[in-house]
Amino acid sequence: MPEVTLEADGSQDALLVRVASDEGNVGWGECEASPLTSIAAFVTPKSHGVCQPVSASVIGENLVGISDIERMSLNVGRNSMDLLQAAHTWSGIEIALWDLLGQKLQEPIWRLLGYPKNFPKTPYASLLIGQTPELTYESAKKAVSAGFKAVKFGWGSYGTGSAGADAEHIVAARDGLGEETELLIDAGQIWGSNVEAALQRLPALKRARVTWLEEPFFADAYSAHATLASHSGSVGIAGGEGAHNPHMALNLIDYGKVSFIQVDSARIGGISPSKLVADHAVSRGVTFVNHTFTSHLALSASMQAFAGLGDHRLCEYPAQPKQLALDISKEKINIDANGEIFTPNEPGLGITVDLEGIKTYLQKVEIFVQGEKIFESKEPSDFVKCT
Amino acid sequence: MPEVTLEADGSQDALLVRVASDEGNVGWGECEASPLTSIAAFVTPKSHGVCQPVSASVIGENLVGISDIERMSLNVGRNSMDLLQAAHTWSGIEIALWDLLGQKLQEPIWRLLGYPKNFPKTPYASLLIGQTPELTYESAKKAVSAGFKAVKFGWGSYGTGSAGADAEHIVAARDGLGEETELLIDAGQIWGSNVEAALQRLPALKRARVTWLEEPFFADAYSAHATLASHSGSVGIAGGEGAHNPHMALNLIDYGKVSFIQVDSARIGGISPSKLVADHAVSRGVTFVNHTFTSHLALSASMQAFAGLGDHRLCEYPAQPKQLALDISKEKINIDANGEIFTPNEPGLGITVDLEGIKTYLQKVEIFVQGEKIFESKEPSDFVKCT
Repeated sequence: MPEVTLEADGSQDALLVRVASDEGNVGWGECEASPLTSIAAFVTPKSHGVCQPVSASVIGENLVGISDIERMSLNVGRNSMDLLQAAHTWSGIEIALWDLLGQKLQEPIWRLLGYPKNFPKTPYASLLIGQTPELTYESAKKAVSAGFKAVKFGWGSYGTGSAGADAEHIVAARDGLGEETELLIDAGQIWGSNVEAALQRLPALKRARVTWLEEPFFADAYSAHATLASHSGSVGIAGGEGAHNPHMALNLIDYGKVSFIQVDSARIGGISPSKLVADHAVSRGVTFVNHTFTSHLALSASMQAFAGLGDHRLCEYPAQPKQLALDISKEKINIDANGEIFTPNEPGLGITVDLEGIKTYLQKVEIFVQGEKIFESKEPSDFVKCT
Repeated sequence: MPEVTLEADGSQDALLVRVASDEGNVGWGECEASPLTSIAAFVTPKSHGVCQPVSASVIGENLVGISDIERMSLNVGRNSMDLLQAAHTWSGIEIALWDLLGQKLQEPIWRLLGYPKNFPKTPYASLLIGQTPELTYESAKKAVSAGFKAVKFGWGSYGTGSAGADAEHIVAARDGLGEETELLIDAGQIWGSNVEAALQRLPALKRARVTWLEEPFFADAYSAHATLASHSGSVGIAGGEGAHNPHMALNLIDYGKVSFIQVDSARIGGISPSKLVADHAVSRGVTFVNHTFTSHLALSASMQAFAGLGDHRLCEYPAQPKQLALDISKEKINIDANGEIFTPNEPGLGITVDLEGIKTYLQKVEIFVQGEKIFESKEPSDFVKCT
């Protein structure tokens, strides 16, 4: 966006990945990540054998079937073991590879993952909590009018002041939503590993019949999650968006005892690790949910892993994205008359990047090492060419 | 280094951090990380409120005491929550802040951490396993001649072929070392989460009285670690160098059941989180060990957190670093006549960067966004100036 603010709104910029094959197929992906840093992780000079740029494991590789994506994923994990940002960079590439494979095989990704059918999902609106309880109330009413059957509030002031002040927002949210609409709350890691602070908020959440309390703690603070979960009763504990490898999400299930595991395919290493987490969630009676705050390309990517799970119903839906996120694709995953959405049936992601639409947003990036240009982003004119 | 190879040798490049105060104090740190990617994480345009560059939480801040480092650490964690590489960038800065504080207060960092005394450590030589068992044998003999009382072998072919082939290297290593020298083995995550592959290697490790088997699995594969640990008997399981926040190391202790927790201060977020892990290790009867493969600046940084723990004796020591790592500082942490080393008693890290020595290694990096230069590395001449 022309102006990026300090809101907790991840749709203010985007890093798109395009992969092209010699056969003429093209796949697109998106990293939910810092663009410049993720580019650097792709092009950086190597530091040693297990601190190589992501490009070393990707450029020139063969892509015939799913096993090739798994192979590249293992290679990135190995060759970029010590390059922390590699997981975020690779995530967008992995998604693009799945999209390309879907184009090639003329199948939607969820079918390539082994699902016979894609089930409807109930999109929930992800909204920032209001600056006052009145504004939270208004925001809730608006979301219901817009047809949402579930609404999530979070970030902003939530968790930063007193439990009493937070409770006023929860009451306002429930009042605004009425009795029928599901209410979810997102604490955005605000309590670090302070279990007591989270426990103080539970009574208000229980009274308002909140479905889940999301990210109460740091992503890796498993014992804090487990302690809270043992007290949270009807309020499920949710988390997982910070996972940058599948183990982190599996651990949050096994050790953190969450009831809802939220996976962003554009961070966890792509669609394959997301599916691995979905399988584990099913085996543990935990509900899988996507994490998506940006484009409909990212939304489709994060829906694939649980498209075929009929009982895993809630789906994060970018309700108020910035214009950039909307302009990334012409196709949209629209909410139908039943208030539901479906993972696209079209090949790959079923969402095509609108090259004309994003032209005005493109940022020119150039990186030089010892005077040699090691990265230059494409000009809009180069960008439209296929290969 | 002029040439960077695919060896698993992290001393082939370096990213140094210098912080300077208005009072004229200077502190140095080192990131054990991809230099270009870590620079990008410092200067990248912000993506949103919790995906800000590391610089946003550091530049212009006050540093009066330890609590200021803690405050900046929390701010980086919050403001750069979604910027994965931030932890590696911040690690070098945090170390430099401790060094600066030590200069200002004229105290070694270990004393600022609350240790009344610094205990001797037994440095172990970290060596790459030989291309043949004969070469492993020769390498072991050489390390003993050089005075090492403990030697670690790993990487290279270890774990990639048959358990029988690996056993030949273990036998050769023990033969070369003789009975008195401690033998440690490093698998470098080679088995992913395949417990069976690791179990097959245990008998040979037990026969050779190996002290620990290091990093058998992915850093986050806790249940694999715990299963192996329940079978490993006299061979302790070690790991932790991949931790980029203290929780990962605490989890490896609590859920992975390792006996040795290995922390690289230049990756885990600096010296404070390393000390937090050391305290936890002590409370759990787990031995703390540094991870260091680069310069003596990094060695001092990683020794501070357990300098005062007399029973935590083993210390990773860069036995065959590249010339770059040696040229970073004039001061060295030398092995004494008893085969021991001490954390420096001088203020801060006690290791000063040799500006003349590193001149020839400096790499010019420039990053442009929309034609505007957002980063340019210092010229050697700028570099020598204090502020």
